[in-house]
Amino acid sequence: MHMEKVNKAVAFLKDLGLSQMLVSDPAAIFYMTGRWIHPGERFLALCIGEGKAPVLILNELFQFQEDIGIEKRYIKDTDDITEVLKGIVDPEETLGIDKTMQARFLLAMMEHHTAKAFQNGSFAVDRARAIKDAGEQEKMIKASKINDAAMAQFKTLVRDGVTEKEIADQMLGIYQSLGATDHSFPPIVSFGNHASDPHHEPDDTALKEGDIVLFDVGCVYENYCSDMTRTFFWKKEPTQEERTIYNTVRRANEEAEAMLRPGIPLCSIDKRARDIITEAGYGPYFTHRLGHFIGIEDHEYGDVSSAFSNLTEAGNTFSIEPGIYLPGGPGTRIEDLVLITEDGYRRLNDYPKDIEVLG
Amino acid sequence: MHMEKVNKAVAFLKDLGLSQMLVSDPAAIFYMTGRWIHPGERFLALCIGEGKAPVLILNELFQFQEDIGIEKRYIKDTDDITEVLKGIVDPEETLGIDKTMQARFLLAMMEHHTAKAFQNGSFAVDRARAIKDAGEQEKMIKASKINDAAMAQFKTLVRDGVTEKEIADQMLGIYQSLGATDHSFPPIVSFGNHASDPHHEPDDTALKEGDIVLFDVGCVYENYCSDMTRTFFWKKEPTQEERTIYNTVRRANEEAEAMLRPGIPLCSIDKRARDIITEAGYGPYFTHRLGHFIGIEDHEYGDVSSAFSNLTEAGNTFSIEPGIYLPGGPGTRIEDLVLITEDGYRRLNDYPKDIEVLG
Repeated sequence: MHMEKVNKAVAFLKDLGLSQMLVSDPAAIFYMTGRWIHPGERFLALCIGEGKAPVLILNELFQFQEDIGIEKRYIKDTDDITEVLKGIVDPEETLGIDKTMQARFLLAMMEHHTAKAFQNGSFAVDRARAIKDAGEQEKMIKASKINDAAMAQFKTLVRDGVTEKEIADQMLGIYQSLGATDHSFPPIVSFGNHASDPHHEPDDTALKEGDIVLFDVGCVYENYCSDMTRTFFWKKEPTQEERTIYNTVRRANEEAEAMLRPGIPLCSIDKRARDIITEAGYGPYFTHRLGHFIGIEDHEYGDVSSAFSNLTEAGNTFSIEPGIYLPGGPGTRIEDLVLITEDGYRRLNDYPKDIEVLG
Repeated sequence: MHMEKVNKAVAFLKDLGLSQMLVSDPAAIFYMTGRWIHPGERFLALCIGEGKAPVLILNELFQFQEDIGIEKRYIKDTDDITEVLKGIVDPEETLGIDKTMQARFLLAMMEHHTAKAFQNGSFAVDRARAIKDAGEQEKMIKASKINDAAMAQFKTLVRDGVTEKEIADQMLGIYQSLGATDHSFPPIVSFGNHASDPHHEPDDTALKEGDIVLFDVGCVYENYCSDMTRTFFWKKEPTQEERTIYNTVRRANEEAEAMLRPGIPLCSIDKRARDIITEAGYGPYFTHRLGHFIGIEDHEYGDVSSAFSNLTEAGNTFSIEPGIYLPGGPGTRIEDLVLITEDGYRRLNDYPKDIEVLG
């Protein structure tokens, strides 16, 4: 049990005017308890609050013996959740609700007046999770170090005629040989014009001379995620247009990173990268936000986008991933993870960004 | 677009007093549109209702060109969902909410008075999904035929010293060689006393003479699921106790199946199996419901349990899976899928249930 993480979230709940909350997102429960429980459609919640001892409410199907230092309340499939919550939730107070809680449970609690009112309380937990402590930072750093080393190996898999899927299928083994446990998301391997679809899924397309080769990949190390993108060229120097696009994206990536420090609006970072791409004439082809927060999950609360004006804080980890995607190609993206430090930032990926022609 | 499935659900919505609903579960959206969209944390909904043309609301990240015969409304990450829903949802009427909708969206809709009131409407969609039409029945039958054929191959993987994980890792290849696309759930391979944990995850335990070998496995064929359990013995005839337990579970399975027809309470089927196990003295060790509904998802709405008094209907497909789990072993489970027909039932698994000693 990580009581310091619970206490951090409870303090942030207070800022929302909340004295109690049901945390139900498995990743948030892992964050606080150190245990992954995947309840599927079943009810799972950690009740936290000011002056409350946390209670973990879980289906008896997910029983475990280990003492995690808090009360475990087991429920059956046939139990009425609203009955179980009596005595755990204070019905005279507003209850913070996890943003991911299923509507079936929320609507039932509303019908049975489990609390005085219901309010999305996830911001408090998300805010706690967004500020990585020293132990979490260590794991994020290591996960990205593995990702750098893996990238160097992935490019050795590239050969004429290999398919995107054949390369993607070999990645997990490489990650595991380097000490990671899993992908942090299904890897993107894009050849040629596929690089201009930012969410392309690897298919049976075979590589041919002159193709762009884009890897957007990440792994999990001790439950923390990495995420990086590099764009290569196969056997042929890039065309003038490819070179211009590549260098524009690289400059957007590097200048956005160079401005990083605590206390700046996240939208201003997106703006810096977007301005560079727009001034180069490619504005309409940078079709997504500049980055996303990351930690236990590949995508955590927090955007580097025009719509997100929160300020950076020491301990934040997020991606900086500008891209240009011309319809029909070419497409390029360059992505690093970064960590905001007390006096600046640390880039978590060291894999070079120079134009690299493979083969 | 499967308008006949939408219309079935809309008719059932009427029984709940609802004229409109936001369907947000990806599996329910697949059921109605024929398209899988996995929005992660992003908003996705199909708005359906009496006299309404369905509208699919999805993030522009999940754009697709194909005309599915209904309006697609694309939204951006920066859009306010409650603004988008104006003009789609009638604010003067109660809105059916999908049981799996995330609380963040429901709480925002409540705050912005998107509808007059909000009610869990999933029962209507679930009720439609629980009655498989002829085309769905074909796929369920085929998925279980593949599962039968796969079971015959799985047992050939069993040898002294093999680990649970080594067997589990070979299953997907076998399923795919038989025409399935995927597992319908992570396979359970349990050796020895692991068979008495109904949710055991395959690990590095090596097989030894006298072990029980339990396979709880299923595959996906054209998006429909199978699910079956068989329990074998390795190289040694079962002990008297193992034999008694096996035969008790088998009798519970067969007698529960023998009573199947339309119009009987699902709880009465659970009771039949449970009574047999209880009379044999093992009642406390049958620790879960007798079965669950299945279709596009391995677990769909509908239980064969003491708490579920709905009546069987022609077109229902569910599992019959009694088990006995003595703490520390032995454990046994025997599971088939069944289809309720107009005048009785059809067992979808033909794999034999006689005691089988492998090796």
